[in-house]
Amino acid sequence: MGAEPPVIVLVRPQLGQNIGKAARAMLNFGVTEMRLVRPRDGWPNPDAGPAASGADVVLQRAQVFDTVQEAVADCSMVYATTVRRRDLVMPVLTPEQVAENATAAGQRTAILFGAERSGLETEEVALANAIVTVPINPDFASLNLAQAVILLAYEWSKRSELAVPPARELELPAPHAEIEGMIAQLDEALVEKGYFHPPSRMQATRNTIRTIFTKTGWSSREVKAVRGIFRALMGPPRRR
Amino acid sequence: MGAEPPVIVLVRPQLGQNIGKAARAMLNFGVTEMRLVRPRDGWPNPDAGPAASGADVVLQRAQVFDTVQEAVADCSMVYATTVRRRDLVMPVLTPEQVAENATAAGQRTAILFGAERSGLETEEVALANAIVTVPINPDFASLNLAQAVILLAYEWSKRSELAVPPARELELPAPHAEIEGMIAQLDEALVEKGYFHPPSRMQATRNTIRTIFTKTGWSSREVKAVRGIFRALMGPPRRR
Repeated sequence: MGAEPPVIVLVRPQLGQNIGKAARAMLNFGVTEMRLVRPRDGWPNPDAGPAASGADVVLQRAQVFDTVQEAVADCSMVYATTVRRRDLVMPVLTPEQVAENATAAGQRTAILFGAERSGLETEEVALANAIVTVPINPDFASLNLAQAVILLAYEWSKRSELAVPPARELELPAPHAEIEGMIAQLDEALVEKGYFHPPSRMQATRNTIRTIFTKTGWSSREVKAVRGIFRALMGPPRRR
Repeated sequence: MGAEPPVIVLVRPQLGQNIGKAARAMLNFGVTEMRLVRPRDGWPNPDAGPAASGADVVLQRAQVFDTVQEAVADCSMVYATTVRRRDLVMPVLTPEQVAENATAAGQRTAILFGAERSGLETEEVALANAIVTVPINPDFASLNLAQAVILLAYEWSKRSELAVPPARELELPAPHAEIEGMIAQLDEALVEKGYFHPPSRMQATRNTIRTIFTKTGWSSREVKAVRGIFRALMGPPRRR
């Protein structure tokens, strides 16, 4: 059983557009529960829908609260996204560590995001169990709200059941005998063409060729294609 | 010493605003090299600057190219961000795996991002060593360009803090331009030999050939050897 997705709590968000973008970011990674604490322009906000690009379900279900305390009342773990606060002695985790912790504990988790410009207030951060900080370029730290949300949601989904790793439809490398068959065909052709010269270098050159074509990892299908290419190169021009 | 940050290649980007947002996303994670292939509205684009929110240095240094081939000519590893392609047999990696690979090898890496709506064309994906796909909610896959860029840049920066493992004694893969040179030589020869038949299958066959020879990971020395082999196969028997 995977961990329940985190609750995303937007604290005093200013622009409806940013609320919509956060919803879109969340749903991309299967995170659907948004809570709003005193959104500046009230709720619902007509600017949110268009910015959500189809993630309306997240907006429709969003709940509004007066305080952060109420918004996280049912959550066992609360993380506050912010840079390190000199005024608070709290653990500081990366998004990856938050995802790891949550998966391990399997409890209801909330992640707080502050207002676009001002961020979270000290009292709000102090409510959290830990701070979460995205490790960022110290010379250019300019993550917007939706970007912070998407990184947290992305890390979460990597640990959850939703994150279906891309199916590897890779073909398996061909059995070694097929690679050898291809090399033998090539070797015969190269002997015919007088490629191995001088004779004293012949074994070294053969070893090089074997290494080059063995390391390719080609599948049976690809070996067949390459053998066809060799034949075509050797043959006379074909008229069609 | 960390791995060199990847080159972010935006292929036929449409809106200047999105180019600016991508620059902002990059710089947050210390990724500064942007390349543009045929931006729809030309370059520079007055809409890019305001959207970059201060990441102007990335835009100022952005280089423009006519083709993806030219844009990745000096890169040894090329990743194409896209969903899985039924028409191409290629490795599919997560952003995390791309970052792991690159850190290990310490080589120049390019990541291709397609146009906002249409994405990358098959021929462009075929140029890459592998596909990179963000594992995403299958019921709501709605990542925009800047979001895709930020996730790749973020994963990269997580690894760049780690110590780079000691250089392996293996030869590094050849720069992409050398692989392309080899493929061009082969293509010319195969056209001459009448290999591409019927003409309706020509592009698909070319994509297959490109994939087969790009995935080899051959070094410059090996590419040179294979080009010699192609020449020998095509030439008349030599008497010594």
